[in-house]
Amino acid sequence: MKKSRLILLLLILITGVVDAQTADHVLAKNRAFTGAKATLKSYHAIYQLDNNDPKIIEKAIRNVNNALTDPRLAGKVQIELVAFSGGTDAYLNGGKYADELRALAEKGVILAQCNNTLKERKISRDQLYDFIAVVPSGNGELIIRQAEGWAIIKP
Amino acid sequence: MKKSRLILLLLILITGVVDAQTADHVLAKNRAFTGAKATLKSYHAIYQLDNNDPKIIEKAIRNVNNALTDPRLAGKVQIELVAFSGGTDAYLNGGKYADELRALAEKGVILAQCNNTLKERKISRDQLYDFIAVVPSGNGELIIRQAEGWAIIKP
Amino acid sequence: MKKSRLILLLLILITGVVDAQTADHVLAKNRAFTGAKATLKSYHAIYQLDNNDPKIIEKAIRNVNNALTDPRLAGKVQIELVAFSGGTDAYLNGGKYADELRALAEKGVILAQCNNTLKERKISRDQLYDFIAVVPSGNGELIIRQAEGWAIIKP
Repeated sequence: MKKSRLILLLLILITGVVDAQTADHVLAKNRAFTGAKATLKSYHAIYQLDNNDPKIIEKAIRNVNNALTDPRLAGKVQIELVAFSGGTDAYLNGGKYADELRALAEKGVILAQCNNTLKERKISRDQLYDFIAVVPSGNGELIIRQAEGWAIIKP
Repeated sequence: MKKSRLILLLLILITGVVDAQTADHVLAKNRAFTGAKATLKSYHAIYQLDNNDPKIIEKAIRNVNNALTDPRLAGKVQIELVAFSGGTDAYLNGGKYADELRALAEKGVILAQCNNTLKERKISRDQLYDFIAVVPSGNGELIIRQAEGWAIIKP
Repeated sequence: MKKSRLILLLLILITGVVDAQTADHVLAKNRAFTGAKATLKSYHAIYQLDNNDPKIIEKAIRNVNNALTDPRLAGKVQIELVAFSGGTDAYLNGGKYADELRALAEKGVILAQCNNTLKERKISRDQLYDFIAVVPSGNGELIIRQAEGWAIIKP
């Protein structure tokens, strides 16, 4: 039956065209996305700094600044930067991040150090910049903050 | 008092046996666990891609596909893959991830690029695959999504 | 007008002093911070172990123990350690983490392995410690736990 074959062929072609159009539509729709909307009055994030690689420390500081200046969040985001494990190196007095860390603290970012790491590595509080806070544990801080609705971000 | 000594000894032995049984029970109970139950109607996750290591990029794509096909979540999970910092390399036109990224977009995964990174690295939007969305900042995107109840996952 | 100039100069000086005092106050306030308060009855965290680097595996085990012993969380935190991708190596029978993992399980930590990774790497369940649970996918587990209010932490 030539006629039914022709109809089948047409159906296959149409389906293919529709599929391609749907895919094109999905891709175009993705391109048109401009980001989630910040409809709440305030936002909170805790950054986990547990690595002494200078690239990671610098990325963490850059990330925090990017969050603070995101036009959607500017003026309504509270951030904490908690250091533990190798990340503690960033807070050691005499290091190269003094100016950037002080600038973050002056912008209201909480800078906190894990006390467990201080004990494990036999670092006294005096060896840190004098504006750093000490919290019982970095991991506990992450868990409690998450339960308060804060985002946990690991640079 | 021999009798009381004997009783003490018996108590110690029993306690030891009970302890061992309790430990065995806890281990057997852990083995029997089959995963958290997905009782909600929908789930959301944003994947953070901030590294240009091909192993990390490939892991991110694999992770997203694993989440989409987890029998507990299939058909009810919305995913966004946001690239910033080194992760931007994955979205550069002419790279080797075109097919896999297009397939993700066609499955409804939102593919978003941080605009701050584009500015810092002087990359124009034209240099990305044409189906990639641009958002003000990757970090802002993570924070807003978390506040909306999305999981943040860093591969 | 000399007088107005003088007033202007004074204003600038006063503003500078006030700014410096405000900055000092902010820094002192940060130093005085002692950590978030754990006001809830229970807390939950899922640790993501997706790397076979011994330093990361050891950090993961240390992190979990630090969370369990944080004085704010002791006795009221439930933890799950989910392994996938390279992290699976930590659970392979005959490895060097048997004692530490068994100790975690005995403390009530859920130890779970991603089934997708087992299939991809052709690892049978028998090759894992016999007290390890198997879940459909590590990524699905993270997403479902987050929706249940658990913190996701990547060591």
